[in-house]
Amino acid sequence: MNMEIKVMKNILDRNQNKANEVRKILKEKNVKMINLISSPGAGKTTLLERICERLSGEFRVGVIEGDVTTDRDAQRLKRFEIPIVVINTEGGCHLDSHSIYKVLDCFNLDNLDVLFVENVGNLVCPTAFDLGESFRLAVVSVPEGDDKPAKYPMLFRQANVVVLNKTDLLHHTNFSLKNFTYDLRKINPSVPLFRISCTEGDGLEEFMNWLSKHLKP
Amino acid sequence: MNMEIKVMKNILDRNQNKANEVRKILKEKNVKMINLISSPGAGKTTLLERICERLSGEFRVGVIEGDVTTDRDAQRLKRFEIPIVVINTEGGCHLDSHSIYKVLDCFNLDNLDVLFVENVGNLVCPTAFDLGESFRLAVVSVPEGDDKPAKYPMLFRQANVVVLNKTDLLHHTNFSLKNFTYDLRKINPSVPLFRISCTEGDGLEEFMNWLSKHLKP
Repeated sequence: MNMEIKVMKNILDRNQNKANEVRKILKEKNVKMINLISSPGAGKTTLLERICERLSGEFRVGVIEGDVTTDRDAQRLKRFEIPIVVINTEGGCHLDSHSIYKVLDCFNLDNLDVLFVENVGNLVCPTAFDLGESFRLAVVSVPEGDDKPAKYPMLFRQANVVVLNKTDLLHHTNFSLKNFTYDLRKINPSVPLFRISCTEGDGLEEFMNWLSKHLKP
Repeated sequence: MNMEIKVMKNILDRNQNKANEVRKILKEKNVKMINLISSPGAGKTTLLERICERLSGEFRVGVIEGDVTTDRDAQRLKRFEIPIVVINTEGGCHLDSHSIYKVLDCFNLDNLDVLFVENVGNLVCPTAFDLGESFRLAVVSVPEGDDKPAKYPMLFRQANVVVLNKTDLLHHTNFSLKNFTYDLRKINPSVPLFRISCTEGDGLEEFMNWLSKHLKP
């Protein structure tokens, strides 16, 4: 085994150990953690805005914002007056369980039901790092094209739920719902799929009902 | 220096050495290499289709397609009957100079003027790896949102040219050209910026003129 592979294995092993620790802490505190993964600009933050609008009466919500740099996404969520912590990776391409563990102290977990983690916009690297989440939410958007499940299968294989966002742009692109669904089902036959438009509202009620059900203890 | 940082430095040093070697070979053969970097689904392959349509009379073009898995992008370019080599990274999040060096032999460089490299869709990792390219083309698309230069500054800082694609969707999104340009100019005041729509054709002529000029020996 060469040194690069050895170091990578070492990194992933250590990440898994810390993820297990995070998962244990959150379980003891009855907090669900959701890891949002997508390309840059697929609409993770806008989805979080819709979630906060609709579910923050029902659940006590906190957010961890993972960003290469800036706190722009956190600024957009400020109006909800919920606890938000920004992790700037300073060039890093994904969050890991160590960075999550470090910021858990910033939250009062006794006053929290759900912790959403917005990962760095990237379809590849975040998929290798368990953060200790309860489940993984993959967000993909119509203008990215219908070939994303086939071309980036790792995320779609592990996702516990898939959201296809920006369906309001379906008529302005050559996106084929048939091809998208066919490829996704080959990779992950049973994963729940919701087609939504965070700007127009289509499909949001169905998704929020599913989410609400799965966030309950 | 801990082992991870040491290995990363080692990887980047070795990548730089091999990139210098690639650059030397291509210079001797008078071949320009262009490294295309963008998010998944920003339109790199569609841009390559437009480039092949418009410039393959003027230049002898070859393509290296970097993909995590599948040869779908290469299939889309097959109709141009140009030399295409696919590099599947099998989960890897970027191309490196070693993978480029290895496939150079697949091309007859004496019969080539330009080699386009479509990197893995990712705004973070590919920016750290010099491939030996003549210049770096950053592609970003309107539906990703106007905040990409601010949130992923590495790519925009190093880009030799920036293409804003999918301008046909400007009226269907809340993308602000003013905010996008302001952020981009803060990071890279002088980089040429072209606003184009690969599906509608807007802005393509201006971009192709620039490209043609910069591909000449």
